Amino acid sequence: MLTNMTLSGFLDELASSSPAPGGGSVAALAGAVGAALTSMVCNLTIGKKKYAGVEADMKAILSQAESLRGQFTRLIDKDTVAFNKVMEAYGLPRETDPQRALRSAAIAEATKEATLVPLEVMKHCIDAMALVQEVAADGNQNSVSDAGVSAVMLNAACESAALNVRINLNSLSDSDFVGWKSEEVESLLKTSRMMLEETQAMVADKMAKV
Amino acid sequence: MLTNMTLSGFLDELASSSPAPGGGSVAALAGAVGAALTSMVCNLTIGKKKYAGVEADMKAILSQAESLRGQFTRLIDKDTVAFNKVMEAYGLPRETDPQRALRSAAIAEATKEATLVPLEVMKHCIDAMALVQEVAADGNQNSVSDAGVSAVMLNAACESAALNVRINLNSLSDSDFVGWKSEEVESLLKTSRMMLEETQAMVADKMAKV
Repeated sequence: MLTNMTLSGFLDELASSSPAPGGGSVAALAGAVGAALTSMVCNLTIGKKKYAGVEADMKAILSQAESLRGQFTRLIDKDTVAFNKVMEAYGLPRETDPQRALRSAAIAEATKEATLVPLEVMKHCIDAMALVQEVAADGNQNSVSDAGVSAVMLNAACESAALNVRINLNSLSDSDFVGWKSEEVESLLKTSRMMLEETQAMVADKMAKV
Repeated sequence: MLTNMTLSGFLDELASSSPAPGGGSVAALAGAVGAALTSMVCNLTIGKKKYAGVEADMKAILSQAESLRGQFTRLIDKDTVAFNKVMEAYGLPRETDPQRALRSAAIAEATKEATLVPLEVMKHCIDAMALVQEVAADGNQNSVSDAGVSAVMLNAACESAALNVRINLNSLSDSDFVGWKSEEVESLLKTSRMMLEETQAMVADKMAKV
């Protein structure tokens, strides 16, 4: 499992000539890092007298951020598994017509599954971005730059995942699936960028007052 | 060392109530991930007949990307060490006037050093972004989405590092240092955003032609 590798080992594996892990697992990792920073700001807020008024909110946000971090973390490995299944399908025999038909169907099936993983990353990014906005507004103000980094990493995860959805859609011929998912990607990306912009403005405003 | 921790262990440590590692180490990690993806695209281009014409260029880019990855990786730990030194300085005794003067000087010195780490991350991001543009243009086109993710992660590293430079500058009173470094941050960030935009347009164009 990738998540059991050391940071150095993972970076070596990423840089290697093996196409997986690649951008898809990186998208999920960026999401996990973003969610972890939101949790950190919650943890640095909870138990502080100054922030007693938001203690219950921060505990609820922490629990949601930790759940999202778990989901992002699982998606790091899931993306590489899905990518390897696509590669396996491409490796199926194609000497006879029935073999070619089976191979094409297997490639399409595996590619659709590989599309759904980064799409799931994108949806989690929007949920996590909503939590960042709350911690940036009400969390420990000494950690407001960490809330900002959390938002930056979540949007980077969403942008990275979008590239992975699109490259998979490129090789599919099911025009209903492609059309539907393309619209979904554009809409999620637009939302993420808008939420990042709002959060960056809020963080800059809070930092100017420190 | 953080880089010897597993991905899961690092994420747990990041999410914890300890303020370090935080956004600064995350910025360096995002840079290392971005550089690693550029190396991967080089490795997936080198040795392929179709790309024999750019083989020498890709080898040169790979060597530079790997050098930058090494520098980003070292900065993951360096940022946390620098942050901990600031915390140590805040912990110095402040009962007498000479103690208070010593403590203030130590805080200012440690904060300046902590400012230089994310600034170094930002400079490396610009160098690495120039490499991404070359691999997006000339590298293996099957990996063009990975080149896109590389650019997204490098810009996220630059944005994250900028937040860390600014929050440190906020607590410094040396107005020459603050003014000079603030200008540097704005200029580096503007360059990174412009290079990301160019790269995203190039990647989108290439993906539309696949």
